[in-house]
Amino acid sequence: MPFITVKVLEGKTTEQKSELVRRMTQVVSESFDVEPDKVFIFFEDLAKKDYGKNGKLQSDPDA
Amino acid sequence: MPFITVKVLEGKTTEQKSELVRRMTQVVSESFDVEPDKVFIFFEDLAKKDYGKNGKLQSDPDA
Amino acid sequence: MPFITVKVLEGKTTEQKSELVRRMTQVVSESFDVEPDKVFIFFEDLAKKDYGKNGKLQSDPDA
Amino acid sequence: MPFITVKVLEGKTTEQKSELVRRMTQVVSESFDVEPDKVFIFFEDLAKKDYGKNGKLQSDPDA
Amino acid sequence: MPFITVKVLEGKTTEQKSELVRRMTQVVSESFDVEPDKVFIFFEDLAKKDYGKNGKLQSDPDA
Amino acid sequence: MPFITVKVLEGKTTEQKSELVRRMTQVVSESFDVEPDKVFIFFEDLAKKDYGKNGKLQSDPDA
Repeated sequence: MPFITVKVLEGKTTEQKSELVRRMTQVVSESFDVEPDKVFIFFEDLAKKDYGKNGKLQSDPDA
Repeated sequence: MPFITVKVLEGKTTEQKSELVRRMTQVVSESFDVEPDKVFIFFEDLAKKDYGKNGKLQSDPDA
Repeated sequence: MPFITVKVLEGKTTEQKSELVRRMTQVVSESFDVEPDKVFIFFEDLAKKDYGKNGKLQSDPDA
Repeated sequence: MPFITVKVLEGKTTEQKSELVRRMTQVVSESFDVEPDKVFIFFEDLAKKDYGKNGKLQSDPDA
Repeated sequence: MPFITVKVLEGKTTEQKSELVRRMTQVVSESFDVEPDKVFIFFEDLAKKDYGKNGKLQSDPDA
Repeated sequence: MPFITVKVLEGKTTEQKSELVRRMTQVVSESFDVEPDKVFIFFEDLAKKDYGKNGKLQSDPDA
């Protein structure tokens, strides 16, 4: 505990994800008073062709 | 708000998803009285090899 | 299939949800060419005290 | 009902997943007193590069 | 790993859930060759008023 | 984007969640180079009676 799922548009680099895991683990550990080894983070990459906003699929040319 | 996740067997075309986003956004906007630009839709394609029903993986020959 | 999760701020009435299920099932059935009895919809109510946006918990007075 | 999502590190074989679906459906059916054809299981494979634990992305060399 | 989410109609007893955790952990441990203490199970109770199927909210009288 | 779900044992205070939203939004904004108003955070409180680990429901006396 806690278990954190990050759904984000595909394209973030492994370096960005690695930095986010490091910093997010610290923030969660301090704010929620839990040990870092109890913080689990899952990334879910989302393609534009699978993401709809304001009535348009974000891969649509006029999105 | 609201955030909608659609988990569906893989194989739906981008056209089908685009139409669903358009129509679903309108239905949600009208039924829930929210602005269309506040409606977020995420698609999650599911492979038969990752989908179990009635005790069988749906990629099993006898599923 | 498909399985649809609708995460929405708490406060929508059962009538609104009932209408959305009716209309959303039709839209999904037609757009994805699936039978209505194959469309599953789950609502997840979200309290403002559990929803953070733009750095603020939405229950914060100055959110 | 019920709907079960299994998030697991990528690499499990189709045979392992097929066995798990068979056995898990039986356990759920017996423990929850539901028919096997009402038990739905979804697998979500997780790559090490998308999995953070103890402050490190599990694809990091020193994870 | 793995992380398992069980979404089920509300009403299952703690005894039923406790039995399911015990048996499901064993099945997952054996099928996926992981230690029992690496198996995490989360229950999500679903009210009929939040569950739509076949175009109807399951709390609707004529569902 | 991104959308972040934090599943955590129930009991964290609104103050703790408010601090986590503030700090997590900053970390995500900086690591992923996105505007703070594009970062959405959802909390899901988990009761011990709905959380299984190592074969035991965490509300079990001998968990």
